[in-house]
Amino acid sequence: MAEKITPRAKDYPQWYLDIVKEAGLADNSDVRGCMVIKPTGYAIWEKMQRGLDKMFKDTGHVNAYFPLFIPMSYLAKEEEMAEGFAKECAVVTHYRLKAEKGKPLHVDPTAELEEPLIIRPTSETIIWRTYKEWIQSYRDLPLLINQWANVVRWEMRTRLFLRTAEFLWQEGHTAHATQAEAEAETLQMVRVYQKFAEEFMAMPVLVGPKSDGQKFPGAIYTLCIEAMMQDGKALQAGTSHFLGQNFAKAFDVTFQNEKGQREHAWATSWGVSTRLIGGIIMTHSDDNGLVVPPRLAPLHVVICPLGKNDAERAPGIAAAEKLAAELRALPRDDFFGYEPISVKVDMTFDKQPGFRYAEYELRGVPVRVEIGPKDLAKSACAVARRDVPGKEGKQFDVPLAGAAAHIDKLLRDIQVALYTRAKKYRDDGMRTANSYTEFKEMIEQPGFVWAHWDGTGETETKIAEETKATIRCIPFDAPIEPGVCMVTGQPSARRVVFARAY
Amino acid sequence: MAEKITPRAKDYPQWYLDIVKEAGLADNSDVRGCMVIKPTGYAIWEKMQRGLDKMFKDTGHVNAYFPLFIPMSYLAKEEEMAEGFAKECAVVTHYRLKAEKGKPLHVDPTAELEEPLIIRPTSETIIWRTYKEWIQSYRDLPLLINQWANVVRWEMRTRLFLRTAEFLWQEGHTAHATQAEAEAETLQMVRVYQKFAEEFMAMPVLVGPKSDGQKFPGAIYTLCIEAMMQDGKALQAGTSHFLGQNFAKAFDVTFQNEKGQREHAWATSWGVSTRLIGGIIMTHSDDNGLVVPPRLAPLHVVICPLGKNDAERAPGIAAAEKLAAELRALPRDDFFGYEPISVKVDMTFDKQPGFRYAEYELRGVPVRVEIGPKDLAKSACAVARRDVPGKEGKQFDVPLAGAAAHIDKLLRDIQVALYTRAKKYRDDGMRTANSYTEFKEMIEQPGFVWAHWDGTGETETKIAEETKATIRCIPFDAPIEPGVCMVTGQPSARRVVFARAY
Repeated sequence: MAEKITPRAKDYPQWYLDIVKEAGLADNSDVRGCMVIKPTGYAIWEKMQRGLDKMFKDTGHVNAYFPLFIPMSYLAKEEEMAEGFAKECAVVTHYRLKAEKGKPLHVDPTAELEEPLIIRPTSETIIWRTYKEWIQSYRDLPLLINQWANVVRWEMRTRLFLRTAEFLWQEGHTAHATQAEAEAETLQMVRVYQKFAEEFMAMPVLVGPKSDGQKFPGAIYTLCIEAMMQDGKALQAGTSHFLGQNFAKAFDVTFQNEKGQREHAWATSWGVSTRLIGGIIMTHSDDNGLVVPPRLAPLHVVICPLGKNDAERAPGIAAAEKLAAELRALPRDDFFGYEPISVKVDMTFDKQPGFRYAEYELRGVPVRVEIGPKDLAKSACAVARRDVPGKEGKQFDVPLAGAAAHIDKLLRDIQVALYTRAKKYRDDGMRTANSYTEFKEMIEQPGFVWAHWDGTGETETKIAEETKATIRCIPFDAPIEPGVCMVTGQPSARRVVFARAY
Repeated sequence: MAEKITPRAKDYPQWYLDIVKEAGLADNSDVRGCMVIKPTGYAIWEKMQRGLDKMFKDTGHVNAYFPLFIPMSYLAKEEEMAEGFAKECAVVTHYRLKAEKGKPLHVDPTAELEEPLIIRPTSETIIWRTYKEWIQSYRDLPLLINQWANVVRWEMRTRLFLRTAEFLWQEGHTAHATQAEAEAETLQMVRVYQKFAEEFMAMPVLVGPKSDGQKFPGAIYTLCIEAMMQDGKALQAGTSHFLGQNFAKAFDVTFQNEKGQREHAWATSWGVSTRLIGGIIMTHSDDNGLVVPPRLAPLHVVICPLGKNDAERAPGIAAAEKLAAELRALPRDDFFGYEPISVKVDMTFDKQPGFRYAEYELRGVPVRVEIGPKDLAKSACAVARRDVPGKEGKQFDVPLAGAAAHIDKLLRDIQVALYTRAKKYRDDGMRTANSYTEFKEMIEQPGFVWAHWDGTGETETKIAEETKATIRCIPFDAPIEPGVCMVTGQPSARRVVFARAY
């Protein structure tokens, strides 16, 4: 077989792009930086949406939808946000084209907007303008709203899923009567993201605040989940921002409290995006192709009947269809989002078995079942797990009676095994530097580095300029271990985590 | 109580807007023609999405996502489409703003795009440009793809849900090897829409082709579902287009057939939008507020414990919680999309019972349960159905033992009753005109009119100009009854349906 996937060891960035392309996840489009999310990629996103949406609703949130367009003057109202996003804004200036016979289609110069509209890069401004109408009294609070939407940030260097001009995401925007409540929400939602990353994506994450230099424009502080990819680089996988009263002040959103006084509301916002699909690829996949955790896999099981001719194949096909029906009829539960297990019977007998297997490995199907004449003679089948390639991951002589329950359990086991393996990889990739010299050596190797830092933006910038490493996270569960900054020698209360990042 | 909803008889358009506002469905935004879909409105849309998405997948379709931006030159490639949509295009001309200290935020004149991008008003062009890469051989066909997305059409006169500059929709785009297959798909999908309208929305529809004058720009023909609103006007609720080879030719999409020859692929597209929420309102609601069919209701059941003081209320609250738990624990099935029945226990004892009931009637909750001391003395409750207001729709002495099953069945009954009532209203509103004079009289009254027409665009335009009525549909299941055109006296093979429309 021709090698469809460049090995990681040879060219990691190319390996990533090969997986995205060959597993049918996404394509570049002619529109600069905008991707086409292909059916398999979108199916993973739908599973992510389903899982996250349930967690949002279980924590009291509801969905709504706000306009794509934001008047330029709205963005201007929050200075940090305007500065942070101005350079990446797609701007609508006209509302009509002109199609005239004999002339090329062109923008109608008489149809210029009085005020330019930007395509939302994030929706705090338009949402807080709306909240001004919705919030009058403490009885209207908390307001716990999420939006599933597309956003646009005109990035100069793009990469499928990881950084694209248009991407899909969810953005939560909540309003609260007190600072304490808003801060509790900020924390709750980063913990929701952590749970989602660990339990659905099987991706371990560090959780904690960003440094001030890395926080969201307009936020008081930003909490994040941060994951380690297989090349040792960091991926910011989700953020939850405590916005204080910044947006309430910018849009004059006040409420009457229980004492009859008017106060500005307190805000949070939080989001994850299609970037997470990049996270899945770079956490689990291998040189054979995509590996997807079962809870997010579009197709859970492929069953391949085998045989040299129609007569040999017929009983295998019958057994495959029977097993597929048994799998689909298993009781639905929360693990698979109350959907039936997804099963396909592969009938591409014009291809060699090895080619058929390789194709499904490439696409990341978690479990493959093979049913050939020899298996059937034993009323059994062979079951291969995608996360352990080769013979080691293949069980022979699995009795067909009971195979459905066996595979159901195996899918759940794979979910855990993927997390355990990723966690070990991540933990092994965490090192500790005790001097700047040591740090500079370590940061050239894959992985994250724990180091002391004096807490200033100057030092952070200096380190970033000299090493291309940034502070990814100040993890909540790190030991409180005072020391001195590796660069300035100033006191440091605790180590923070540095890495190069996507 | 103050009257929150203007009665239909007094001012029908205002009644509609009052429902949208008071039931918490949507708001206008500051951005011209763009709406904010509020949580209750969005929850109805989510239920619609869930129902439709399952029907799409059951018929072999998969979801994908294509860019928001379309290069102006793509639109120009299909002439009818360019002419049809040019006047409604929002145009992105710049990709950066400039935030300078001391100056207002402004568009950066140095960041003009080489080619303007339009915001998709529909995605045939960008999708067929992509299909050029995906389709090489007959083995790649059919390609059965759907997209859930926002689109923008810069409408001059807008109305919440019914006609907005930005709206949410799904658009299916399929490619086929043969004309026959593409036409079968076009028909299949309009039948899917019919099924959805009837079984989920409880909204009867006429199904059939549009006249040439009303077809989609770029289509060979358009099939539609058309519904009658309570004011007798028509709502185009969904369309399915047979696009022939127009887009394959515009974007040079060819495939190698089984004989090794290259052919252009055949196309369909089909869509429904958030406009359907307007259809639900105007099919079922009444002067007390919103009425939503149970399959699309965000909240199915509200239980109101009653009592004058805490001591009286406590047993009612306990009984309400028990009933709520029983309802939520009912087996999940397809009728409710494998989700549990949604139940709320209302605890707003600071309001009078009549006020509490009116509030949930306004919001369209299909079933209300009342549990007061007198009910409890009989181990019973009272159950009110939203679709039949007043005492007539209230059952007393429903035993609490068995109430959950009773309510489950009632919800299913309400779904059928709403359809039956709407069907009767629609059928009663269909009349037949045998002369243009008769037609002109009838069209001034609410309802649809069957009439003979000579099949020409000229006559259609003349009728529209003189009566504001358009041909809504040429229903498939109409009797073949030859006659003569009411305007020109030319032969007509069958009657068509005229109406004034939204």
